[in-house]
Amino acid sequence: MNRYRDEKNSAGPQPRPEEAENGSALIEGRNAVLEAFRSGKTIDRLYVLDGCKDGPVQTILREARKQPDLILNFVKKERLDQLSAAGHHQGVIAQTAAYEYAAVEDILENARKKGEAPFVILLDGIEDPHNLGAIIRTANQAGAHGVIIPKRRAVGLTATVAKTSAGALNYTPVAKVTNLTAAIEQLKKEGLWFVCADMKGEVMYDLNLTGPIGLVVGGEGDGVSKLVKENCDMAARIPMKGDIDSLNASVAAGILAYEIVRQRLNGK
Amino acid sequence: MNRYRDEKNSAGPQPRPEEAENGSALIEGRNAVLEAFRSGKTIDRLYVLDGCKDGPVQTILREARKQPDLILNFVKKERLDQLSAAGHHQGVIAQTAAYEYAAVEDILENARKKGEAPFVILLDGIEDPHNLGAIIRTANQAGAHGVIIPKRRAVGLTATVAKTSAGALNYTPVAKVTNLTAAIEQLKKEGLWFVCADMKGEVMYDLNLTGPIGLVVGGEGDGVSKLVKENCDMAARIPMKGDIDSLNASVAAGILAYEIVRQRLNGK
Repeated sequence: MNRYRDEKNSAGPQPRPEEAENGSALIEGRNAVLEAFRSGKTIDRLYVLDGCKDGPVQTILREARKQPDLILNFVKKERLDQLSAAGHHQGVIAQTAAYEYAAVEDILENARKKGEAPFVILLDGIEDPHNLGAIIRTANQAGAHGVIIPKRRAVGLTATVAKTSAGALNYTPVAKVTNLTAAIEQLKKEGLWFVCADMKGEVMYDLNLTGPIGLVVGGEGDGVSKLVKENCDMAARIPMKGDIDSLNASVAAGILAYEIVRQRLNGK
Repeated sequence: MNRYRDEKNSAGPQPRPEEAENGSALIEGRNAVLEAFRSGKTIDRLYVLDGCKDGPVQTILREARKQPDLILNFVKKERLDQLSAAGHHQGVIAQTAAYEYAAVEDILENARKKGEAPFVILLDGIEDPHNLGAIIRTANQAGAHGVIIPKRRAVGLTATVAKTSAGALNYTPVAKVTNLTAAIEQLKKEGLWFVCADMKGEVMYDLNLTGPIGLVVGGEGDGVSKLVKENCDMAARIPMKGDIDSLNASVAAGILAYEIVRQRLNGK
């Protein structure tokens, strides 16, 4: 939400959600919203008329509660009227994800098509959309075949992410999984080795990061979670000489991804 | 400016500038402001009573015009009253830089003290404070002895930069120079070699980046400018396999800085 807009609108109606203007769509009306849920569309946010007890709206709310990462907003009629483009919201408006998610299989297929050993970047809890966008951009440039993010405690593919990815989101598939550990197990069966970013790991230059690989990078706060770390084959440390704790998450992901690029180019 | 604050204040008085609350200081009153200019303090922003033609205010305006990167705002009395903490602004309030700039000599001294070959990062036109903060953070962790930024067409050390640097700004000196090319010439006399980020350069792994070095990274839009590039000894390319143009500026700076770290550790 930019400053200009705040000032212009501070006394007037609130602007529409930023995300809706940059790639995601608003779906309004009870049938349309229910259909969106049932067809498996990812709904980022659901606006429901506050206090509405109608049966169809309750059905929609039940569907909504099955999506753990959906943000539910109970709002006044005025807000719905203002969000509504067509004017027939019937008390519900859903905001879909800006971009569609891929499946883990699509990422492997991407590697197969290119005749390359799979290179996947897994993000354990990136919450800042600018970091996620920058990492998808890095993944694209480093030749990674896809990015895997978890459903919970992480940002999804919002319009800000799409914008920060500078177009990379159109090329690099991003899969969203319920359980990162399960995804790692699945990919291990496909021959991938896993390396996680870990400040207590081995210096990255000393590891062999060639071959089919999954790089796991943690979120801004806590890094890679214990369970995910235990499922990795290697722990890689970026050497740090500084006076502070860590690097920015997207910078760390970039440095690690490019160590893999270097080793792939040089055959280690 | 966060959303919460916008909503709370939309109908009431405007909040004080964000920067002023996070490290920079507001100086008010004619003598205090003039003294700040004359003592060489960096003033980020100057608020002057609109229409005021008094001699002392004109003197301050003359000082202000000597600082090319100062932002000058002519405002109404109400705005000054609201910004003023002490209530005696006399028509002028100056906002100082959040952090003090170092001199180029301080950066060399930093290297000397550590007994290391100088490693300096020069930024040619980074405009996004989050990128500048992330790069200062990277500089700290990569063991660079300082960062040099230009006065014009670039973000300075604002509170957002300080915050994004995650504390690194307290340790890594940042110098602001009128002319990057002149700074490069000065540092060449101290034995530094210069490498710039350039998509048409040699692959970075094939260059010798050991020894006293200056790494020049361009801004978000145009990269390193022609004149600065011509003054560099080497041009380094990050290999990119992607479908898009480039990497995020702070990620690119991180990858290049860590190639220097790798070569320094390995003796190339």
